[in-house]
Amino acid sequence: MSAPVTISIDAMGGDHAPDMVVEGVRLAHVRLPHVRYLLFGDTRRIEPLLERYPELKGICQIRHTEESVSMEDKPSQVLRTGRRTSMWLAVDAVVKGEAAGVVSAGNTGALMAVSKFVLRMLPGIDRPAIAGLFPTERGETVMLDLGANVECGANNLVQFAVMGEVFARAVLGLEKPTIGILNVGAEELKGNDAVRGAANILRESQLPIRFHGFVEGNDICAGTVDVVVTDGFTGNIALKTAEGTVKFFSGFLRHAFGSSLLAKLGYLLARRALNKVKLRTDPRRYNGAMFLGLNGIAVKSHGGTDAFGFANAVGVAVDLVAHGYNDRIRRELEHLKPQEAAAAQRVAGNG
Amino acid sequence: MSAPVTISIDAMGGDHAPDMVVEGVRLAHVRLPHVRYLLFGDTRRIEPLLERYPELKGICQIRHTEESVSMEDKPSQVLRTGRRTSMWLAVDAVVKGEAAGVVSAGNTGALMAVSKFVLRMLPGIDRPAIAGLFPTERGETVMLDLGANVECGANNLVQFAVMGEVFARAVLGLEKPTIGILNVGAEELKGNDAVRGAANILRESQLPIRFHGFVEGNDICAGTVDVVVTDGFTGNIALKTAEGTVKFFSGFLRHAFGSSLLAKLGYLLARRALNKVKLRTDPRRYNGAMFLGLNGIAVKSHGGTDAFGFANAVGVAVDLVAHGYNDRIRRELEHLKPQEAAAAQRVAGNG
Repeated sequence: MSAPVTISIDAMGGDHAPDMVVEGVRLAHVRLPHVRYLLFGDTRRIEPLLERYPELKGICQIRHTEESVSMEDKPSQVLRTGRRTSMWLAVDAVVKGEAAGVVSAGNTGALMAVSKFVLRMLPGIDRPAIAGLFPTERGETVMLDLGANVECGANNLVQFAVMGEVFARAVLGLEKPTIGILNVGAEELKGNDAVRGAANILRESQLPIRFHGFVEGNDICAGTVDVVVTDGFTGNIALKTAEGTVKFFSGFLRHAFGSSLLAKLGYLLARRALNKVKLRTDPRRYNGAMFLGLNGIAVKSHGGTDAFGFANAVGVAVDLVAHGYNDRIRRELEHLKPQEAAAAQRVAGNG
Repeated sequence: MSAPVTISIDAMGGDHAPDMVVEGVRLAHVRLPHVRYLLFGDTRRIEPLLERYPELKGICQIRHTEESVSMEDKPSQVLRTGRRTSMWLAVDAVVKGEAAGVVSAGNTGALMAVSKFVLRMLPGIDRPAIAGLFPTERGETVMLDLGANVECGANNLVQFAVMGEVFARAVLGLEKPTIGILNVGAEELKGNDAVRGAANILRESQLPIRFHGFVEGNDICAGTVDVVVTDGFTGNIALKTAEGTVKFFSGFLRHAFGSSLLAKLGYLLARRALNKVKLRTDPRRYNGAMFLGLNGIAVKSHGGTDAFGFANAVGVAVDLVAHGYNDRIRRELEHLKPQEAAAAQRVAGNG
């Protein structure tokens, strides 16, 4: 039996909220019976949904608010006037200690801004990163940043490496995860100043990190390393390119299986095996981007996801809580800070 | 009947050269009987290969040289000491008017450096770009830059947009191709200075270009626009991420089809339809990255490709020659230059 955990939910965030959110909580409940929920949003809309599922009555508590953040709202505007939105209040519940983590399928930029403002950064981290899991030939790889920071310096990338490394150990359970920096080639001289600088720091430093060196785009799915470090611009584009490629390939395959009677029959025979592929590459399984580097657990669900995907995002938040990710990274950062600074100093001195 | 065209070939470039190269020329000959070849490299190695194919005797001419560029050679070093390499001499044949274009499967950085030095840039273009074709849900999309320029400013991206637009009209035969700039979101405020600046220039300018705005990673394979413009860092990573994703997905599918007797039978029945998918997404079909912006046609084949892929790269060079790409872009640039400058001025004035 796991100890009870409470997760706060922005019930009004996402394209199909609040229906999809409540349905997602119901699915999450099946897998995670020890989790309790605070649902922030419009009681008049949430209550009728809860009525349908008596099993949720005892584990969900609605916190009413009239306001919510829309997908079009600018982060700066939400920071100024959004203190009564379901998103803000859900994040705030983590600071108040009412919840161990927050999940929202709402506006990414606003969630990041509110989370930074309300939760604040972990000491030693300059900028938070969005991390996500990718299915690979060897298992799973964590990649960060997926879009929080469009421009990153060498030091940001080094901090992402540390956060990703601790994540791979704490949550994925890997003993000595390997780290790679995404680049246009594996050679030391390739790339821009940020990736070369970060690689120098990781190579020169005494950090207890297994730094593999540079990796390329095709190494992400190959699972060459356990943690892929990149800036938010490139990471976001790589993530969406991979998603788009899977969608293109699957669509093409579906079309092929429908193109003749023989192909249809072949599909029927191979269906069980093909469903495994579908399940393995289902983007909903990998839904739930983690905001790492904050003083609290915050997970962003894809805005367009369905209940199955939202339930996975809840699972990601519960995982981070259960593995004490934030406590572990806080401890690591305290030890690493002087070493990292010394390494950066040395590299700067050599350059 | 097409008029005869001569292509110069770096016969010593590529992982499996010269065998793969000569075999590739043979495959290209079947499809393009009007093309003649100058093969630069070691006669002692090339001649025995040509002996096997009597049909190549009359259309291939060997130009002997002892030297070649290796995959490890640095571009700067090749520029200093590589004038007698098969790569350099093959590029030089274009300047001398002996060949209409050059194809090499050798070291990309060296080929780009030598091509820039020997062929020089088109007037009005500051930096060349590597362009490639992607299969999409709607047909084909051209993307550039795929790795020539790790860092790009707004003006570079605007020039890439112009080069890509002319390519889509001249070679793909599209009447009014649409252009998108790769970014982390479709909204005007997203992204870094370079993409926002380039979008402003394209929006404000009087250029006869159908500028769609920003596109995201998933739009590449969706075929949302005909031309995707990006810097060489992001473009290279997006290309390799897409290739890696297709490889991962295909491997997974292959494994699924072998996982049970039923699945194997299903595969046999659907094989004909599945082969179409394989053919459509075969990276060898999309082999042949074009160096645009140079005063001559240069095409880079993937170093690890086989003869089928190399033949496609030859086909790409012949296409560029046949459609007079360089003459057309030269004409366009002459007209566009003053307009582009005026647009840039206006945007700078507004900023």
